[in-house]
Amino acid sequence: MSEKKEIGEISAMSDDRFPAPGAAALAADGSLLLGARRIPLPASVSPQARAFLAMPRVMLGERPPLADKEAWRRWVTTMNLGSEPRVAQMMALVGDRVRLATREIAGVVVHVATPAESHPARRDWLRITVHGGGLVYMGGSYARAEAGLVALQSGCEAWSVDYRMPPDHPYPAAVDDVVAVYRAALATRAPGSVAISGASAGGNIAAAAALKARDLGLALPGALGLFTPECDLTESGDSFVTNLDVDNVLPGPLPEEIALYADGADLRHPYLSPLFGDFTPGYPPTQIQTGTRDLFLSNSVRMHRALRAAGVTAELHVWEAMPHGGFGFDAPENADARCEFNDFLERHLG
Amino acid sequence: MSEKKEIGEISAMSDDRFPAPGAAALAADGSLLLGARRIPLPASVSPQARAFLAMPRVMLGERPPLADKEAWRRWVTTMNLGSEPRVAQMMALVGDRVRLATREIAGVVVHVATPAESHPARRDWLRITVHGGGLVYMGGSYARAEAGLVALQSGCEAWSVDYRMPPDHPYPAAVDDVVAVYRAALATRAPGSVAISGASAGGNIAAAAALKARDLGLALPGALGLFTPECDLTESGDSFVTNLDVDNVLPGPLPEEIALYADGADLRHPYLSPLFGDFTPGYPPTQIQTGTRDLFLSNSVRMHRALRAAGVTAELHVWEAMPHGGFGFDAPENADARCEFNDFLERHLG
Repeated sequence: MSEKKEIGEISAMSDDRFPAPGAAALAADGSLLLGARRIPLPASVSPQARAFLAMPRVMLGERPPLADKEAWRRWVTTMNLGSEPRVAQMMALVGDRVRLATREIAGVVVHVATPAESHPARRDWLRITVHGGGLVYMGGSYARAEAGLVALQSGCEAWSVDYRMPPDHPYPAAVDDVVAVYRAALATRAPGSVAISGASAGGNIAAAAALKARDLGLALPGALGLFTPECDLTESGDSFVTNLDVDNVLPGPLPEEIALYADGADLRHPYLSPLFGDFTPGYPPTQIQTGTRDLFLSNSVRMHRALRAAGVTAELHVWEAMPHGGFGFDAPENADARCEFNDFLERHLG
Repeated sequence: MSEKKEIGEISAMSDDRFPAPGAAALAADGSLLLGARRIPLPASVSPQARAFLAMPRVMLGERPPLADKEAWRRWVTTMNLGSEPRVAQMMALVGDRVRLATREIAGVVVHVATPAESHPARRDWLRITVHGGGLVYMGGSYARAEAGLVALQSGCEAWSVDYRMPPDHPYPAAVDDVVAVYRAALATRAPGSVAISGASAGGNIAAAAALKARDLGLALPGALGLFTPECDLTESGDSFVTNLDVDNVLPGPLPEEIALYADGADLRHPYLSPLFGDFTPGYPPTQIQTGTRDLFLSNSVRMHRALRAAGVTAELHVWEAMPHGGFGFDAPENADARCEFNDFLERHLG
C-alpha cells in the first residue's frame, strides 16, 4: 500500500553508508545495514545469568599460521592454561562425589567417572561425553573434569573421550576415537543404554561419530545430546553474523581451528559437518540445546530441522539470552538445561 | 587469565560512546554497545526466503493518541486496507478448494471453512484459529481468509474466530470470545479432537483462552499451536532488542496497541500475558514456532521453558533466519512449518 509506505518506511539505500545509531537501512544487495546500538542486560533471565552476561569477554587473539605446527603446539598449551581456572571450578563442584580414573579404552585415552552414589534407576546407563574446545583445545585436565561433572549430573558412569587433536592428529582422528570408544562400550553394554553427547566442537564430533558408527553398521546409541554444536564447519549459518558480539563468550567464527582440524578435507563432508549428513537410514533420538544469544544458534536450529526432515526424534531447547555454552556455573538456567537432558535420557535410555 | 585478557579483550567503557563500525564494547552498566554493522542475506535459507528477506519493510507509523477512539477506528480501517493485498493472495491460494461461510456461534462471528476434499483420517478434527494483527487489526476479511487457509492446510474443518477488538471492545472481549466459541464446539465435538492455534497476537489470545477455559473447568483441547506468539504483553524479552531491525517484518514492539487492548488491566495477568501463567493444573500439548530473526523469538523460547517447567508436553521449532510470521507465501520453510504442525496434530488429536 503506497499510503502506508510513505510512513516511516525503511527504504533501500543506493550505497553502503551506515545509518545513524539506532536506525536501519536496506542495502541494494539485500543486506541489512544497522546503525550502532545498545543492547541492555535482559531483565528476563536470572540474576546469575545477568551477572554472567555483564562480564567482559576474553578474546582468543591471533592464531598461528596454519603450517606452523610448532607454533600451534605452543598456542594449544597457552589456551589450555587459560582454561585451568574453569577446570578448577569444575573439579571443586565434583569434589569427592565422583571417582575419577584415566584409562586406555580401544587405544584411546578415556577419563572414567563413577558417582559415589549412583542413581538407582541409572546403574546401567553410560554417558560418553565429547569435550569442546574448538576442535583443538581442552584435552587432558578439562576432559577429565568434564567426566566428573557429567557423572555427577546424571548420576551414572561417564566416559570422557580425550580424543586426539591437531596439529598432530587432524581429522578424522577425533571422530575415529569416539567411534572406537563407543564400539568398545558395546562389548559390555546394550546400545540403548548408552548416550553420546558433546558441547560446541564436542557436539560436532559426537554427531559425526554417530553418523560414522551407523555407517559402519554399529547399533545406534539410545540418545544423542548436542549442546550448541559446531555441526557446520563451513560456518554458513545466519547467527554467525546476527549474534556476532551479541554472544559474550565466543568472539567469532573459528576458521583457523577448522582449517587445522580438517587438514584439507572437504568441510561439507558429513563427518566434518554433520549438518549435511543423511539421517534417513536411522539416527539416535537427539536433544539439541542452545540460546538466543548463541553465535551457534543457527547450527542448532538447522540441525534440528535436518533431523526432523528425516523423521528423527529430535528436540530443540533454546534458553533466553543464553550465549555459547551457557551462563557459567551458578545460573538456574544451566541447571534447567541439565535437567532437560536427564529427562530426555529417562525417556530414551532403557 | 591475565595473559589472555591482554589479547584483544573487549573491555568495559567508561561512557556510552558507540564503538566503530564492526566493533563492540561493554558499557559500565553491562549493556553491549555494538558499532554499526552489515547483515548479509543468509545463504542458509531457500531462494524464496532470501527474496522475502530482501524486501523493504513497511513501517506502521505513528499510532493515534490512546484516548482518541475515533482516530483509532480510522487507523484500524487504514491498517485493514493495508492487509487487503495479503488477503487477496490468501484467497487465491484457497480458491474453490474450501467452502467458506460466516456464522454466529455463541454470539461470536466465526468464519467456518470446510475443505472440498477433507483428509479421510481428519474428519473429526476441528481447528479453531485465532487471527493475528496486533490485538487490534485484521478482523473481517483477513480472519475469513485465514479460515480457508487453515482448513486447506490441515484438510479439516476450521473455525476462524472474528473476535471483538479495541477500541470498542478491549480486553477481555477477545479472550472471552475464543472461550465461548471453544465451549460451543464442545457441544458437538470431543475436546481431544479440537486444536486451538494462533499467530502473533492470535497466539497470545489462543494461549490465554486455553488458560481461561481450563480455569473455568472446561475439558482441555487436544492441542495448542502458538506461532510466534505475543505471549508477554510487557514485551520484556531480549529479542525485542537483539532482533530489532534484524526482523524485516515487525518494525518494533507494540506498546500503543497493547495499551489500547489492555484498557488499564495489569499486563502481567496471565490472561493478558500467558507467559506468566500457572500451567501446572494442566495445559494442552503445545507446539511453538518461531525464527531466529523473529522480534518475538524470546516470547517463544520463554513460553516453551515455562511449559516445560510445568511438565507440559511442549515442542519448540525454530526456523533459520525467519522473521516474524514466516517468509511470505512461497518459501518451502513455510510449508515445512505447516507440516510440522500437522504432524503434531496427528500425534495429539484423536
